[in-house]
Amino acid sequence: MTICVVIQPFELRMRVRKGSIFYKVIQDAGVQLSSICGGQGRCGKCHVVITKGQGSINKPTKVELEQLSVQEVTHGVRLACQVKVQGNVEVYVPRESLVTQIRLQTEGIETKVKPLPYVKKFYVKLRRPTLQSLEPDLERLLKSMARQGVHPHIIPVEVLRSLPETLRAANWKITVTVWSNREILDVEGGDTRNACYGLAVDVGTTKIASYLVNLSTGENVAVSSMINPQVSYGEDVITRITYAVKDEKETWELQRKVVDGVNHLIAECCSKHEVDRRHIYEVTVVGNTAMHHLFLGIYPKYLALSPYVPAIKGSVNLKAKELDLDVNPNANIHFLPVVAGFVGSDCVADILATGLFKEKNLSLLLDIGTNTEVVVGNKESLVACSCASGPAFEGAHIKHGMRASSGAIESVKIEPRTLNVSFRTIGNVEPKGLCGSGIVDVIAEMLKVGIIDEKGAFIHKAGSSRVRINENGEREFVVVQAGEKGSKDIVVTQKDIRQIQLAKAAIRSGISILMHEMDIRPEQIKRVYIAGAFGTYINPASARVIGMIPPVPLNIVRSVGNAAGTGAKIALISGKARKTCEKISECVKYIELAAHPNFHSFFMEYLNFRL
Amino acid sequence: MTICVVIQPFELRMRVRKGSIFYKVIQDAGVQLSSICGGQGRCGKCHVVITKGQGSINKPTKVELEQLSVQEVTHGVRLACQVKVQGNVEVYVPRESLVTQIRLQTEGIETKVKPLPYVKKFYVKLRRPTLQSLEPDLERLLKSMARQGVHPHIIPVEVLRSLPETLRAANWKITVTVWSNREILDVEGGDTRNACYGLAVDVGTTKIASYLVNLSTGENVAVSSMINPQVSYGEDVITRITYAVKDEKETWELQRKVVDGVNHLIAECCSKHEVDRRHIYEVTVVGNTAMHHLFLGIYPKYLALSPYVPAIKGSVNLKAKELDLDVNPNANIHFLPVVAGFVGSDCVADILATGLFKEKNLSLLLDIGTNTEVVVGNKESLVACSCASGPAFEGAHIKHGMRASSGAIESVKIEPRTLNVSFRTIGNVEPKGLCGSGIVDVIAEMLKVGIIDEKGAFIHKAGSSRVRINENGEREFVVVQAGEKGSKDIVVTQKDIRQIQLAKAAIRSGISILMHEMDIRPEQIKRVYIAGAFGTYINPASARVIGMIPPVPLNIVRSVGNAAGTGAKIALISGKARKTCEKISECVKYIELAAHPNFHSFFMEYLNFRL
Repeated sequence: MTICVVIQPFELRMRVRKGSIFYKVIQDAGVQLSSICGGQGRCGKCHVVITKGQGSINKPTKVELEQLSVQEVTHGVRLACQVKVQGNVEVYVPRESLVTQIRLQTEGIETKVKPLPYVKKFYVKLRRPTLQSLEPDLERLLKSMARQGVHPHIIPVEVLRSLPETLRAANWKITVTVWSNREILDVEGGDTRNACYGLAVDVGTTKIASYLVNLSTGENVAVSSMINPQVSYGEDVITRITYAVKDEKETWELQRKVVDGVNHLIAECCSKHEVDRRHIYEVTVVGNTAMHHLFLGIYPKYLALSPYVPAIKGSVNLKAKELDLDVNPNANIHFLPVVAGFVGSDCVADILATGLFKEKNLSLLLDIGTNTEVVVGNKESLVACSCASGPAFEGAHIKHGMRASSGAIESVKIEPRTLNVSFRTIGNVEPKGLCGSGIVDVIAEMLKVGIIDEKGAFIHKAGSSRVRINENGEREFVVVQAGEKGSKDIVVTQKDIRQIQLAKAAIRSGISILMHEMDIRPEQIKRVYIAGAFGTYINPASARVIGMIPPVPLNIVRSVGNAAGTGAKIALISGKARKTCEKISECVKYIELAAHPNFHSFFMEYLNFRL
Repeated sequence: MTICVVIQPFELRMRVRKGSIFYKVIQDAGVQLSSICGGQGRCGKCHVVITKGQGSINKPTKVELEQLSVQEVTHGVRLACQVKVQGNVEVYVPRESLVTQIRLQTEGIETKVKPLPYVKKFYVKLRRPTLQSLEPDLERLLKSMARQGVHPHIIPVEVLRSLPETLRAANWKITVTVWSNREILDVEGGDTRNACYGLAVDVGTTKIASYLVNLSTGENVAVSSMINPQVSYGEDVITRITYAVKDEKETWELQRKVVDGVNHLIAECCSKHEVDRRHIYEVTVVGNTAMHHLFLGIYPKYLALSPYVPAIKGSVNLKAKELDLDVNPNANIHFLPVVAGFVGSDCVADILATGLFKEKNLSLLLDIGTNTEVVVGNKESLVACSCASGPAFEGAHIKHGMRASSGAIESVKIEPRTLNVSFRTIGNVEPKGLCGSGIVDVIAEMLKVGIIDEKGAFIHKAGSSRVRINENGEREFVVVQAGEKGSKDIVVTQKDIRQIQLAKAAIRSGISILMHEMDIRPEQIKRVYIAGAFGTYINPASARVIGMIPPVPLNIVRSVGNAAGTGAKIALISGKARKTCEKISECVKYIELAAHPNFHSFFMEYLNFRL
């Protein structure tokens, strides 16, 4: 007997068996829960809220009582991996429990692309050889395929090796997988035309996301993500490169780490949806140039030394077996082309996914991360740069900063008269710290109500309950007071404000130099795209208040989530899109900020807020 | 101070240092001595005869006294690896000490081919990048090459990986190796244009020969050969296939064996001439279809089962790294196309080397071995078959048969009246047995003088000193009597004659079926090519007497030695020749003898001599 689970806010109705685990039900519905342990009850990430049918599920488990706060449990928060469904129930999946790309899908960027994959499968029935018909196996196969209008002429030796046995074991009825009408990737017994998959991978400095896609339909089949295992060798690209170039051994070590990581994601995607990894025939990869070099095993030393040139700009195609990637050994691995400096194929993919290369109007695109890529332009011309914005927006180097996870304050209001603070935390739980969007909000509010001036200095004298002198003799603003709504003080210090000033000055200088290069004024920009995890949550109004983005109308600002991943997926299912990427890579004009004569004066100017 | 060594019959004069070893002097002169141990004093193969200057060399060593007979030592026979030159000396290298291909070279077949190799090297000087010139490394390189008119667009990932460091370490002066104007095989610091080599390999059922060739000049740089290490898994192809198809493991085991063998030959060739194996950029390989499958690791089971179809007919190209071949990892390995059944690329290479595909006149080509390939035709049409001639011509299954090595009787005359036998042995030493050409000679003479009849039966009654009844009650002919010229009797038995009848009947049936297919008579044949080690030494008159070849004038019969190896070399240095091979493979009509309705009646007929 089946029961009904309603998943909100997606309005999804699933018929499932009694005793099913929530985590699996939600994943099966195509909603990608944020989880590191994959439903093992270890990471405490898969928060959901039971909105109807509390009586139809089990009581909180020991794991939940350890991982959740009393407050959370009281409000119906549960870990999806711990809940067994016994009757009809409705569940709400909060935003912070979702992997970012889900937002993207709901925003529909990817539904516009028509699948035109390089990989096609053909079902072929052959006549067996006789003494009167002595044609060798391969020529027999090729002749039959030619009658279907396909003329592959590159045959990997692995395919040849098993061809005689495969043909005979399958009674001469086989499925041939062909790449770009010219190369045979695999020959299998029987009709396996339904199993034709590809993988898009976004190798971020901090996170790797992989998307398993049905190449025939273009549909997303599974998504998995993880922290980039290279993070332990350095959080930012320069530290990581410094490690990698110690010796050849170290370059390989980092290369193995990231490939092992992707292999882990492949295993996860395949096991979730019972896909045989042999049926993954193509992989597209995006990443900044440092991730690009480290993924491919290219010696990255000179990326970090002036004049910062990569080893290659164009796309790289190689075989899965050359990288030990756990998909079909003959699968084509396509690393999208890069631009220059640290502006990599993630930026090319951003441009592809947002479509700004074909717009008549001028757009501004920011992909915010430890390095922030900035693009300005339209279908006529595009300029790009990479800004060393640092990790402040990800909560690093901020006194009470934290990543955008449960308990992070993500939005803030300050009442101008009383300086009372109202805020929202991810998961609606007790506040633990400030994530990037929260810090930007606080600072914007502090500016608006006059706690700080445009130079970022405190105007408001210390002494009130909200502004005080800390142990370093600096002024700080108390966002949350211990006992008020949480168990500890959460503050923004003068130093935190300086960190945000440095980060936003780097980004805004990049924007201005590009606009200067294109000779355009802010009012000419008709669309602002903000990509990246931080970009998804930021309040555009606050970003404008602190001067991170130019003074543009808020209704032209659009969050596009992991646009790089979306671009990789588009390139995966469309050969045409891949050609577009080559063109984008070639026509984007790169501006090296380090070499730009105006960079320093711009940077000094933009340390100020409200410009 | 140097001294002079004259090498006969080649009229080569070498100036060498006192104390030089003969073996090295002769090899350095380009004369390829037959040696298994490579000059280590173990195999006793490198016989030479000192013709002048006996006093200028050391006395026979302990090794020589063990390996050579008293008679040999008395006649000035020495092992080249044991002789140190102390003064001017002249040495004669007997035919049996030469690796076959030397004969070929002196016959000049290969000098006709103009080198048109796929591999070319370019010396490039680049400008280093600056902040004003940010082009990535590869694009910088490609742009510079484009100015030289070269436009490679396939770049292996290994090349990319080391490119940044190679360019900078070499101060931006590098040599780029390009294959077929489209793929970069390697990038090295400095100017290495002089070092551009290729390797041609003939994988025989019994022997592997490899030829190191300078691709720019087409010159032979070094030659090495060895027994095919697969021999221990079965002397003939059927036994070997039976072993290989036990399991996948066994196929791989045989594949590893032959690749290890070739790697051994590569090491030998490279160390002889101080060639860096990284500078070997292309390898061509020929072999029958069984050797082809086992070299490439293709499952060979169905080659040995009716209807005997190979996995592939066309040429196979793959990378050295895919086979673990010890040359440049990106080197292209090109296995020449095969024909059908067991008629492999060795036969295609024979046709290429002899040029019979472009002759107006009709030719007959035999490549004699355990399997004998037969080709009949001209530039208009070619037919081929493979005959299971067995190893009798290599001395196997013959009572006193032996391989063509020192002490083998290689030619024989019988005095009609007295039946006295005169003969010549390889190395002019005491007779040890009969090699293939010797057996054919004896039988032809026995026929001529009337010892046996056309059915192969003894006419001559037993009782004379030469014809006697042996312990099995069979008649036998005594070629050498113990005490006469050697220490033991050497005889040809009735059973030996039957073996030769079977072998020659197989070959002659093949020839007749092909001639029948082409509808031609013997007098229309204007040239007969005999290839293979046995073919090099056979007396064409005797071959005609026993009816192995049709009744053709002797002056049209030509021994061409290892024509398959020569063909592989031609294909190595000429892309045009490689295309010719594809055409030959396609246009040769294959006749499957097993399926031919006339095979049995022909075979029965040709068991008789003189037809």
